[in-house]
Amino acid sequence: MPGACPRPFIDLAERLADAAGRVSLEYFRRPLAVESKQDTSPVTIADRTAEQALREMVAKAFPDHGIVGEEFGAERADAEYVWVFDPIDGTKAFITGNPQFGNLIALMRDNRPILGVINIPAQGDRWLGALGHPTTFRDARGSHVCQVRPCAGMAEGIFRTISPQLFKGREALHQAIQDRVRLALYGGDCFSYGQVASGWLDLVIEAGLGVYDYLALVPVVEGAGGVMSDWQGRPLDLRSDGRVVAAGDRRVQAEALALLAE
Amino acid sequence: MPGACPRPFIDLAERLADAAGRVSLEYFRRPLAVESKQDTSPVTIADRTAEQALREMVAKAFPDHGIVGEEFGAERADAEYVWVFDPIDGTKAFITGNPQFGNLIALMRDNRPILGVINIPAQGDRWLGALGHPTTFRDARGSHVCQVRPCAGMAEGIFRTISPQLFKGREALHQAIQDRVRLALYGGDCFSYGQVASGWLDLVIEAGLGVYDYLALVPVVEGAGGVMSDWQGRPLDLRSDGRVVAAGDRRVQAEALALLAE
Repeated sequence: MPGACPRPFIDLAERLADAAGRVSLEYFRRPLAVESKQDTSPVTIADRTAEQALREMVAKAFPDHGIVGEEFGAERADAEYVWVFDPIDGTKAFITGNPQFGNLIALMRDNRPILGVINIPAQGDRWLGALGHPTTFRDARGSHVCQVRPCAGMAEGIFRTISPQLFKGREALHQAIQDRVRLALYGGDCFSYGQVASGWLDLVIEAGLGVYDYLALVPVVEGAGGVMSDWQGRPLDLRSDGRVVAAGDRRVQAEALALLAE
Repeated sequence: MPGACPRPFIDLAERLADAAGRVSLEYFRRPLAVESKQDTSPVTIADRTAEQALREMVAKAFPDHGIVGEEFGAERADAEYVWVFDPIDGTKAFITGNPQFGNLIALMRDNRPILGVINIPAQGDRWLGALGHPTTFRDARGSHVCQVRPCAGMAEGIFRTISPQLFKGREALHQAIQDRVRLALYGGDCFSYGQVASGWLDLVIEAGLGVYDYLALVPVVEGAGGVMSDWQGRPLDLRSDGRVVAAGDRRVQAEALALLAE
């Protein structure tokens, strides 16, 4: 397939996920200093240690590739290929002993995500999506191609979002979503998007995400047959506003986008 | 210690948790029929298969003990010792591939919980609390006694509740809790109470729980040094109304109870 993500990049992404998982598990459920960033999200030494390891691995394998990381900023961000990392997505889960945190790895080509890994090391779950390849899911039982499930509309769908606080000032929208779906669930961080890719969940609507948070999710969801966009239905890239919709079925996405446009 | 939970009951509880975990993992992340009970909570064949296995094990080990299970009702409920099961707590997690569901096992003596197990088989986590014994926590790394952490008040605490929908009709209360705590997190089912016992979380407030859901939690939280009650501060038993507060520190509990009384 023309434009398909080259295999050596996929292999590196797997190794990056292995490394990030290893480092984050070293610190998981152990006492550590929690600092507060300006945005008050907890940041730990584990984040930084993992990001440094990933940066070194990319620089060694593909020295001309760019790198954008949450903790240490951008290098060669104008390169054709740019890696985007969130070594620990879900630090609030991480600091409360909750295994539902992830290592997020994305590869951008000309500002579009062509490769994404959602690695949930403490659960042993990994999704890998890459342009021109079907998304794969691996857990303790083995690895297989994964696929979204069909869903005719929100009334039949299971919706998840990390927190009602994402809808602060938009309570009516949150209520409208709750009223429309079959089931509304909360929590999850990046794991929710893996759930969509595996056909376990139908809709995720979130806001306030950083580029580190959402870019890796796109190839995973899309490579499993799902759709992902901002709240206006536009593709996600490095300049998106952090408001995202992921759906397993286009009909659910269309209904959600109509609701979000109101 | 007088009144301490006898060791043979603890040993049986471990075996019951092993069995419930084994059965639930057989069905986890596999296609299965999801029915709807009257209260619309999803119930699966896994629930029933696990409960049947547990009932047989209790009947064989202690034929004079009573059994109360979510799926198959009560037998000898007036016995001195009564086992209470929720083979799969968090069926919404279970049916969406989310490992944060649990097997809950409680033993009541004269209507008070003296033994509780929170088993999260897909995460490999298990808490066991028993009157007269310290609560233990076991994960992939090993087993140890676990303890709550001190917390001077809600302003320093991390709060978790499964869903904002538990506060339907009590939105002002939910807002007051959110405003008061350092961090509010969502999701979790029985896992949240294990988080309190391990000193990772400071406060859980929930409503609408069944006896199957809350009884097993009490010995776990209390045996780790925490406190658990209904919204009026009364001990939980088979007749409680399903509104519960769990806190690692009495000061947090007191502040939460005052807020709930308003």
